[in-house]
Amino acid sequence: MRIKIINPNTTWSMTDKIGQCARSVASAGTEIIAVSPAMGPASIESHYDEALAVPGLLQEIAKGEREEGCDAYVIACFGDPGLKAARELARGPVVGIAEAAMHLASMIGSRFSVVTTLSRTIGQAWHLAEAYGMQRFCANVRACELPVLELEEPGSKARERIVDECRRALDEDGSDVIVLGCAGMADLCAHITQQLSVPVVDGVAAATRLAETLAALRLNTSKRGELATPLPKAYTGALSGFTLGDNSGHASHQETRR
Amino acid sequence: MRIKIINPNTTWSMTDKIGQCARSVASAGTEIIAVSPAMGPASIESHYDEALAVPGLLQEIAKGEREEGCDAYVIACFGDPGLKAARELARGPVVGIAEAAMHLASMIGSRFSVVTTLSRTIGQAWHLAEAYGMQRFCANVRACELPVLELEEPGSKARERIVDECRRALDEDGSDVIVLGCAGMADLCAHITQQLSVPVVDGVAAATRLAETLAALRLNTSKRGELATPLPKAYTGALSGFTLGDNSGHASHQETRR
Amino acid sequence: MRIKIINPNTTWSMTDKIGQCARSVASAGTEIIAVSPAMGPASIESHYDEALAVPGLLQEIAKGEREEGCDAYVIACFGDPGLKAARELARGPVVGIAEAAMHLASMIGSRFSVVTTLSRTIGQAWHLAEAYGMQRFCANVRACELPVLELEEPGSKARERIVDECRRALDEDGSDVIVLGCAGMADLCAHITQQLSVPVVDGVAAATRLAETLAALRLNTSKRGELATPLPKAYTGALSGFTLGDNSGHASHQETRR
Amino acid sequence: MRIKIINPNTTWSMTDKIGQCARSVASAGTEIIAVSPAMGPASIESHYDEALAVPGLLQEIAKGEREEGCDAYVIACFGDPGLKAARELARGPVVGIAEAAMHLASMIGSRFSVVTTLSRTIGQAWHLAEAYGMQRFCANVRACELPVLELEEPGSKARERIVDECRRALDEDGSDVIVLGCAGMADLCAHITQQLSVPVVDGVAAATRLAETLAALRLNTSKRGELATPLPKAYTGALSGFTLGDNSGHASHQETRR
Amino acid sequence: MRIKIINPNTTWSMTDKIGQCARSVASAGTEIIAVSPAMGPASIESHYDEALAVPGLLQEIAKGEREEGCDAYVIACFGDPGLKAARELARGPVVGIAEAAMHLASMIGSRFSVVTTLSRTIGQAWHLAEAYGMQRFCANVRACELPVLELEEPGSKARERIVDECRRALDEDGSDVIVLGCAGMADLCAHITQQLSVPVVDGVAAATRLAETLAALRLNTSKRGELATPLPKAYTGALSGFTLGDNSGHASHQETRR
Amino acid sequence: MRIKIINPNTTWSMTDKIGQCARSVASAGTEIIAVSPAMGPASIESHYDEALAVPGLLQEIAKGEREEGCDAYVIACFGDPGLKAARELARGPVVGIAEAAMHLASMIGSRFSVVTTLSRTIGQAWHLAEAYGMQRFCANVRACELPVLELEEPGSKARERIVDECRRALDEDGSDVIVLGCAGMADLCAHITQQLSVPVVDGVAAATRLAETLAALRLNTSKRGELATPLPKAYTGALSGFTLGDNSGHASHQETRR
Repeated sequence: MRIKIINPNTTWSMTDKIGQCARSVASAGTEIIAVSPAMGPASIESHYDEALAVPGLLQEIAKGEREEGCDAYVIACFGDPGLKAARELARGPVVGIAEAAMHLASMIGSRFSVVTTLSRTIGQAWHLAEAYGMQRFCANVRACELPVLELEEPGSKARERIVDECRRALDEDGSDVIVLGCAGMADLCAHITQQLSVPVVDGVAAATRLAETLAALRLNTSKRGELATPLPKAYTGALSGFTLGDNSGHASHQETRR
Repeated sequence: MRIKIINPNTTWSMTDKIGQCARSVASAGTEIIAVSPAMGPASIESHYDEALAVPGLLQEIAKGEREEGCDAYVIACFGDPGLKAARELARGPVVGIAEAAMHLASMIGSRFSVVTTLSRTIGQAWHLAEAYGMQRFCANVRACELPVLELEEPGSKARERIVDECRRALDEDGSDVIVLGCAGMADLCAHITQQLSVPVVDGVAAATRLAETLAALRLNTSKRGELATPLPKAYTGALSGFTLGDNSGHASHQETRR
Repeated sequence: MRIKIINPNTTWSMTDKIGQCARSVASAGTEIIAVSPAMGPASIESHYDEALAVPGLLQEIAKGEREEGCDAYVIACFGDPGLKAARELARGPVVGIAEAAMHLASMIGSRFSVVTTLSRTIGQAWHLAEAYGMQRFCANVRACELPVLELEEPGSKARERIVDECRRALDEDGSDVIVLGCAGMADLCAHITQQLSVPVVDGVAAATRLAETLAALRLNTSKRGELATPLPKAYTGALSGFTLGDNSGHASHQETRR
Repeated sequence: MRIKIINPNTTWSMTDKIGQCARSVASAGTEIIAVSPAMGPASIESHYDEALAVPGLLQEIAKGEREEGCDAYVIACFGDPGLKAARELARGPVVGIAEAAMHLASMIGSRFSVVTTLSRTIGQAWHLAEAYGMQRFCANVRACELPVLELEEPGSKARERIVDECRRALDEDGSDVIVLGCAGMADLCAHITQQLSVPVVDGVAAATRLAETLAALRLNTSKRGELATPLPKAYTGALSGFTLGDNSGHASHQETRR
Repeated sequence: MRIKIINPNTTWSMTDKIGQCARSVASAGTEIIAVSPAMGPASIESHYDEALAVPGLLQEIAKGEREEGCDAYVIACFGDPGLKAARELARGPVVGIAEAAMHLASMIGSRFSVVTTLSRTIGQAWHLAEAYGMQRFCANVRACELPVLELEEPGSKARERIVDECRRALDEDGSDVIVLGCAGMADLCAHITQQLSVPVVDGVAAATRLAETLAALRLNTSKRGELATPLPKAYTGALSGFTLGDNSGHASHQETRR
Repeated sequence: MRIKIINPNTTWSMTDKIGQCARSVASAGTEIIAVSPAMGPASIESHYDEALAVPGLLQEIAKGEREEGCDAYVIACFGDPGLKAARELARGPVVGIAEAAMHLASMIGSRFSVVTTLSRTIGQAWHLAEAYGMQRFCANVRACELPVLELEEPGSKARERIVDECRRALDEDGSDVIVLGCAGMADLCAHITQQLSVPVVDGVAAATRLAETLAALRLNTSKRGELATPLPKAYTGALSGFTLGDNSGHASHQETRR
C-alpha cells in the first residue's frame, strides 16, 4: 500500500519530520511518500494562508492519482485545508490530521483539549470540531502563542511551552485526553505523553493509520453525490493547469478500479 | 462609497449581469465595480472549483485595497468561497451572497427554501446555513440540475425549471420565502417574484445592500482576533505574488484609517 | 421611504435620542418617525414589562399601516418585544434591534459580546440569540447592573460603567465585536467605539439600515404561512380596540400593494 | 390547595370545559378556579392574538395573588402565552399546558406528534418544543385546519378530523404518543385514547397535576434571577392599572411566605 | 395506587431513607414499596456499577408486574440506570429520579445546577441532561467528592460539604435552582432549602409525584414502538431466569388492562 | 497484538462468522479471539436484551485482562452495549462496532444511511449516532424488519431484503454511504458492496482495524476521569463474582504498563 502524506506548507524540514513520524507508525508493507507542494505559504496560520495552500495540495493529489498510484492520502496540517476538494479528486480515501486526531481522541476518553500554536487559529479548530461532529468531545482549544515555524528551530522553548499548556488544559478544562494541534508537533508526542498521565494524540500518526485502515477495507470516497469527481471545465490564467480532461486517464482508471 | 463585487468565476457575461443587478439596487452615490478574477474556473460546481477560485478572488481583494480604494466587497458565488480569507485581507467589510440572502430571508418569514443549480452543491449550501446560524430557518435546499453556465445561454429552459422548483418548494417544504442559490439567477429575481406569492431573495442584491449598510455604519471587520491581517511570510512558486509585505502600504493605511 | 421606529417604552427622552440616532444613519430620502406608545411601561426590564409593552406597540404598527403609509418598522428595545405579532400586522418589513445588531455583528467578526443593563435581562438576550440563529456567534451576555432609565440621567456614571464592561468582555470572553444591549445606549456608540479597538454595534442604527434595505429590495414579510395577517375576531374589554375588521382598508391595501 | 386555571381567551364555554377537565383529574382536596380574562381575544390563533391575551392573563394572576390565595396557576392555551411574565408575578408555580403535555409525553414514549388546530400555529408549537428542550422528542406538529372555536360548536366534525389526523401521525411520523395541541380538545382526550392504541396527552390534565405536584413539593418559582418579581415602575394609558407598588401587600406576602 | 421505588444499589439503609422520603410526599391513598435488588453493587459510582445494577433492578420490575400489582415505578439512582429496559418490561409508567428532578427544575427557574457526589459521575449527569432535553437548563454539574456511602454515615461532614457546594453553584454558575444529584441526599432537601434562597429539587420526591401523576392520568408507556414488551427468547447461564415467556401471565394481563 | 472480539449475544454461529470477518481484515501479526459470553440473551433486540447482555460481556473483558493479555477489545453488537463500562475495566482500548462504522463512514462520504434489523432498534441507533457526534452524518436509520437470528438461517431471504433496503436508502435518503446495522451482517458486506455503487461499511471490520490502530498507537483509554478503573466495592447475590479487588493484579498490571 502506498500512502501519500502532503504537508500543505512549503517548509521541507517539517515535511521530513512528518514523514518520519508516519513511517514509524505505518504497518509493515505500507510505503509512505511525504511531500510539500511546489507553491504556497511557508506556514499556515490564517485563513489566507490556508486558502493559498490548497492549489499546491491539489496538484500533489492529482500527481498522486496520475503518476504515483497512491492508495490513500493524508493532509498534514491541523486546519485540514482542501479536504473535500481532495476527496473529489482522489479515488482512494483522504484523511485530515485534525479529523483523524479528534475521531480517535473521542474513542479513548470523555473529552479532549486541543493544544495548538497561535490563538488566531483557535476558531478554525472549533470549526473543524463542529464539522466532524467532535464538538461535543472538545473541552477546549488552547494556544501556546507559538508561530508554527518556531517548532522547527533547534533550541526553542517550544516543547516546554506546549507541555505547560497541556498541563493547564488537564487542570482547567476537565479533559482527559490531549490532541496536538499542529503537524509540526508530531515528533513531540512521545515526550509529551511521558510528561502527562493521559493519552496524547498526534494527528499525523492518527491519520496515517486511519488512511491505511480505510484503504485496507477498500472504503474509498463515495462518488455518488457531493464528492463525485469534479466536472471538466476551463481553468484560466495561472491556474490553467488545473483543468480536468473529459476523457482523462483519470476517469478510465476510476472505472477499472471500482 | 465604492463597493467591489467579485464574481469568483471567470465567465464575464455572468459578471456583467451581476454588476447590473448590484447597480440597480445600490443607493445613490454608491459606485459598483464588478469583476472576475484573472485566474480560475469558468464556473463553480464542486469543492475543487471553489478552492481554485479563491486565489484569483484574493488577488482582486488585494487590488481593491492597494489600488482601488474600495470601501466594501461582495463575493458573488453562492458557495461564499474565500470569505474568511478575504475578511482577513480587507480593511472594509466583506459579504458573501449566500450569507446575505439567508440572513435577510430569516427576517421576513418563518422558513426559506434554497433553489440552486446542481445537486452536488446542496451539501455546501447546508454547510453555509449551519456556519451562519441560518440552518434553523432553512426548510430545504433543492437543486434544478442545471449547470451554472446554462443560466447564461439564451433560450435555455433554465427560467422555467427554476420557477417549477420554487413552486414545489413552497408546496412541499412548508417554507414561505425562496432564496435563489446562484449568482447567475440574479436577473431572474423579479420574474420569479411575479410568479410566486412569496418574497424571493437574490443574494447579489442582498449582499450589495448589506455591504453598503456595514460600510455606512463604519462596521469594518474586527482585526482583534481570528480575522486579523495575515502575518507576512514567504510564498513560493506560482503563488509567490501573494506574499504580504511587513511594512506594506496596506498596514500603514490600516492604521490611518481606523 | 418612511420608516417608523417604535420605542416600546413610554419614556420620550429615550425615544427622541433613538430618533436622532436613526436619522443620523438613514439614507438620503428616508423619513424617520420615532414614537413611544400611548400605553405601557416607562422602561422594559422584565418579561412582565415586555409583555405589557406589546399592546401599545401594536397600536403604533396599526396606525402606521392605517394612517401613516409606513414602508418599514423598527422595534427599538433590545428584547425585540412583539416582533412576530408586528410582522403579522404590517405589510412592510419589521426589524428588531437585537435581531439587527446580532446579524450584523456576525458578519464582521468571529464572536460578539452583548453588554446590557440589568442581569435579569440576560436570559432574554440569550433567548433571542438562539431564536435568530446567532447563539453560535454570541460569546457572552454581560450586565452592567444599570437600570434602563439611568441611561437617561445627565451626569450618571452609565457611560463609564458600560465602557468598563466592554473592556472586560474583550479581555475575558474571547470576543472581537461588541453589541450594545439597550436602545438607550444608541448615543454612546461613537464614544465607546473610540475607546475600544473593535467594532461596536448599536441596534438602532443597525435596524434602521436593515429596515431600509428590506424595503428597498421590496422584501416584505411573507404572508403565506405563520406570519399571515391575523384572522378577524372579537376582542373584548380594554382591548376591544384591537379588533381587526374583515373588510378593512388594511386588507384591500394589501392586495393593491403586492 | 387552590389552583387557578386561566384560559387566556374570552370564550367562557371553553373555560367551563377546561375547568371540568381539571377538576376531573385533580387530587382530593384541590380546589380548581377556572376563568377567562376580562379583556382580550375570543380565540388565540396568531402571534397577534397571543400577545393581546397576555394583559388579561396577567390581571388574573395578579388577582390570584392579591385576593384569591392561589397556590399555583395553569395557563390553558397551547401557545403558553405570558408564561415567563406570569412566573415573575406569582409566588407559587405557573405551568403552561404545552409545557406540561410535552414533558409528560417525553416520559412515556420515544417520540410524540402534536395535533393542533390551524397550520399557522405550527411554528409556535415548534418554538415551545425547542424552548422546553422537548424538540428532540417531537416527531411532528400537524394541523387539522380547524379554527379553535369550531371545537365549541355542537355537531361539528372536529372530533372526527382530529382522530383522523392522529391516525396519520402514528402512521407517518414514527411517533408513539399523541399530544393534543389545543386546550379546547381537553374533553376529547378519553374518546381519542379509545380510538388509538397509544397514550394521548391532554395539556390541561397534565398541567393541573404538575401544578399540584410543584405546589405540594413547595417548588415555587425561583426569585433569584430572571424570574424575580418585576421592579415597580410607572405604567401609563389603558394599562396604568398594571403598575406594581413598591410596598405592595404582594411583596410583604412574599417575604412572609418564603 | 401502588408505587414501587427501586433503589438499584443494595444498601438498605439508603433504601429505607428513600422510602420515607417518598411516603412523605405521596398523596393520600398512595402506597409506597421501597426495595433494593437481590443482587448488584453496594453503591453506584461508575458505568460498571451502573451496568451491574440493572439485572437486579429488572428483577424487581418483573416481580412488581407479576406479583405486586404495581401501578408505577421509580428508579432511585441519579444515573437512572435501566430506565428504558424497565419501561419495556412494565405496563405502568417508570420514572427516573434524575429525569424527574431535571424536568421539574426546568419549570421553576431559568437554569439549575446539579450537585452530586464524585466527579467521575459528572459525565453521566450531563449525558442524561442531554437525553432528556434538559441540557439547555443545566448550568453546571458539580461534585462534592463524597463517596455515595459516606452520605449514610452518621456524623460525616457530608451535609456541610453539600451546602457549601450548592452556595458555590449559585455564586458561580448563574443558576437559580439546585438539583440534588444523588438519591442518598433525599433526606437533606429540607435542610438545604432552608440554608439557600432558591428552590432545591430532590429527585426521589419529584419522581414519586410524577409517577403518581402519570398513573393517575393513565399515561402508561406506549407499547407501539421502541418501548414495546421485549420479544421472548432464550437467556442462558446465570441470567437464565430473565427469559420472558411467550404466553406469560404478563402478556395476558397487559391485554386485559389496556 | 491480541484483540478480543466479544459478540454480546450467546449465538455462537454468529460469533464464528464475526471472528472470520475480523480475521480477514486484521493486519499480519494480529491474533483475533472471538467469543460469546457465558450468560445472557440469544440475540439483542430491545433495551432489555441489551442491558442483560452486559454482565456477560464484562465478564469476558475481565477475563481478557486477567488471563488472556488482550491489547484491545471490540464489542460486536450494533447497540454497542456496555461500552463505557468496558472502557473503565480494560487497560487497552475498547471499540464498539456502531461507533467504528459510523466514524469511518463519516470520512468517505457526505451522509450515510444505517440499514438494520427490527424497527424497534432504530431509536438506539439514533441515540448512538448522537452520542458519537455522528448524527450530522446520519441521513436515516432504516429497518428491514428481520429478526437478528434470521440472518443465521441458511436459505432465508435476509440478503435480498437487506440489499433492497439499501437501494431504497440511496434513492430516498440522499445518502452516499451505507452502514450495516447488525454484526450478523458482517459476512454480507462484500456481496452488498458489489450490488451497489457506494461504499458499504461493516462495523466488525471497521472496529477490528480501529482497535488495532488505537493499540498500535498506544492510545489506551484515559484513566484520569470518567473512565477510570471502577472503585472496589461489595457486589452481592448472583453478581457477587463481579467484585473488583483493591490490591488486584489488575491494578498493579496497570501501573506496570503505563
